[in-house]
Amino acid sequence: MQTSNSDLAVQPLSSKQQQRLDDLLLKMEFEADHFLGYPCTREFDYTPLYAFLKYPMNNVGDPFVDSNYHLNTHQFEREVVRFYADLTRARQDEVWGYVTNGGTEGNMYGIYLARELFPNGMVYYSEATHYSVPKILRMVHARNIMIKSQSNGEMDYQDLKETIRIHRDIPVIIFANIGTTMTGAVDDLKQIKQIIDELAIHHYYIHADAALSGMILPFVASPQAFDFSDGIDSIAISGHKMVGSPIPCGIALAKKAYVDRIACSIEYVSTLDTTVTGSRNALTPLFLWYAINTRGRAGFEQIIRHCIDTADYTIQKFQQIGLKAWRNPNSITVVFPRCAEQVLQKWQIALQHDIAHIITMPHVSKAQIDRFISDIKQQQTQICA
Amino acid sequence: MQTSNSDLAVQPLSSKQQQRLDDLLLKMEFEADHFLGYPCTREFDYTPLYAFLKYPMNNVGDPFVDSNYHLNTHQFEREVVRFYADLTRARQDEVWGYVTNGGTEGNMYGIYLARELFPNGMVYYSEATHYSVPKILRMVHARNIMIKSQSNGEMDYQDLKETIRIHRDIPVIIFANIGTTMTGAVDDLKQIKQIIDELAIHHYYIHADAALSGMILPFVASPQAFDFSDGIDSIAISGHKMVGSPIPCGIALAKKAYVDRIACSIEYVSTLDTTVTGSRNALTPLFLWYAINTRGRAGFEQIIRHCIDTADYTIQKFQQIGLKAWRNPNSITVVFPRCAEQVLQKWQIALQHDIAHIITMPHVSKAQIDRFISDIKQQQTQICA
Repeated sequence: MQTSNSDLAVQPLSSKQQQRLDDLLLKMEFEADHFLGYPCTREFDYTPLYAFLKYPMNNVGDPFVDSNYHLNTHQFEREVVRFYADLTRARQDEVWGYVTNGGTEGNMYGIYLARELFPNGMVYYSEATHYSVPKILRMVHARNIMIKSQSNGEMDYQDLKETIRIHRDIPVIIFANIGTTMTGAVDDLKQIKQIIDELAIHHYYIHADAALSGMILPFVASPQAFDFSDGIDSIAISGHKMVGSPIPCGIALAKKAYVDRIACSIEYVSTLDTTVTGSRNALTPLFLWYAINTRGRAGFEQIIRHCIDTADYTIQKFQQIGLKAWRNPNSITVVFPRCAEQVLQKWQIALQHDIAHIITMPHVSKAQIDRFISDIKQQQTQICA
Repeated sequence: MQTSNSDLAVQPLSSKQQQRLDDLLLKMEFEADHFLGYPCTREFDYTPLYAFLKYPMNNVGDPFVDSNYHLNTHQFEREVVRFYADLTRARQDEVWGYVTNGGTEGNMYGIYLARELFPNGMVYYSEATHYSVPKILRMVHARNIMIKSQSNGEMDYQDLKETIRIHRDIPVIIFANIGTTMTGAVDDLKQIKQIIDELAIHHYYIHADAALSGMILPFVASPQAFDFSDGIDSIAISGHKMVGSPIPCGIALAKKAYVDRIACSIEYVSTLDTTVTGSRNALTPLFLWYAINTRGRAGFEQIIRHCIDTADYTIQKFQQIGLKAWRNPNSITVVFPRCAEQVLQKWQIALQHDIAHIITMPHVSKAQIDRFISDIKQQQTQICA
């Protein structure tokens, strides 16, 4: 029972303001129907959870410690973390994790833990790494060197080896792309670990940025190495990408022993301050819990098969109009040459240098691909060289 | 028009899972009715905006630069930023800002800007500062010294002066509490600036953590100094506290010249990477926009009067049962001696050392205060010394 003054000082929106909201909603519907270029699905429905939006919920602090702020969904968040620990083949007692506000926070968490473990360590990351990572490295003052990429987006292992060799006295922190932003390339953890081994480096840490592919690789027949049983120390996987959410979110998982180093008990909320952000979204863990329980592993397997099928269909359609498109193994990112800017803008296609990509997320239909290809074809003679 | 397979691999929740959600909702309703100890209002209603939860919205990057990710609410976010720039008496062309995920991100932003400006600068902050700040300082590797607090929670200016004097060769970064967490104390910017002036420090930066009081001071008759016209360089104000939101959020504002130093153009999303997090919540800016437009300045003034009135009522009620309660000027945080742990737990009262507090947020009614006081009275003879 609400006991106080809900009507305190409320006035309705003006008709002009209401019109702007209505227009925004129409724009969203239009744009969501032309949404081929970013790795976020629109296939979600959290209507049954809207009732929770009435409350000032907050998952403040560590999800595994009961807080004095009772309006939380920690119990559900713990189950989400356990689901992802399972997906990434961690031993349940070995890892800790929480639901973040998205990729930046998850990657910052991994880099922060690594830097605390090896304050003087050098972070190695390829030039195909997401643009937020150099910003994070600058924020947390971590020494770092950018490594060359191969043309498919994978790290250049020769460059990595030669560069580490020059700095053999310094602990190695690998920032591995498990699916690069532009081409969905997966850095080869086996080769990376072999290099570390050959150079007799005993102090090293591997963080995996698995924003999108962290929800693809667990569901394919022959995944590349990417998880805890392959030797990573921490991982970030997005929630708003493959699972889907109206609010950016993600999962950060890390080996418990490293997290314990930074844990700090906070009397004010009677919890541990183990997370980057203090006050935390309590809705997104509930969204993820709901998605996990209404999809299940089998559901996600079916979704991933569907996405890969659409990716292959897209490549074929490009071939039919004489454009070379391609994708990396187990990736749903279809790379093609930059062209017809007007069409790319219409379909919200991401660009970098001379390439563009379509990401065949669950909501992308063959009918949409046909419409896109037809748009490209129409402009092809004019614009594409 | 949605064109693809919404039903891809969806199964209903089991009845046990549904029961858990139903139980959670009941728990939220109960706990929200016993919610006196944290600075978050439950007086909000964003039902008219739920339709936007269908879309994979994302305010990626700088709100003032149009992004290629069209499913955003940047236009509304800009208006929210302008409203807050106005509240904090900034010149509109002088400041830049964005909607954050909450206080930690806003404070991290200010400290990051300060450290980029003065890489060798020393951060001074009082021991009454929020627990997340030492964590942020550790994350961004900022040199720092904790200053003593006075008994009301304000910074000890004598200690500040002596400490800065010892480090006069180092730029000064002041982390000022505009309302401390436990006692709502406001660090005196006039005294702080006088100290800086007396020591002839020309390189300094002032960040204001105005999580709660940033939405109180603009609406009272005699506010303490706290804003851009009082000489701050950046400020963080929470959105989920006084305005209210089911999702933690906040506003970070900073002088534009400092932000330009860290801006970095990102082709992938055709925007600037000026924000801490890349992918960003697009709903919370819409919530704040809606609240601002349905409340208006006059509405917030009325709300703040109501909160202060309830705070004074609470102090009187404590006096009536022989407990000394007090509050700082322009604060709605009522401080009282720690007692009757069972009651404090029931009403989600925050504790630190020997004090506790009730924060008379807009939803807190006199009837609830009466119930709380009656609970305390019942246990008083047994537990309070």
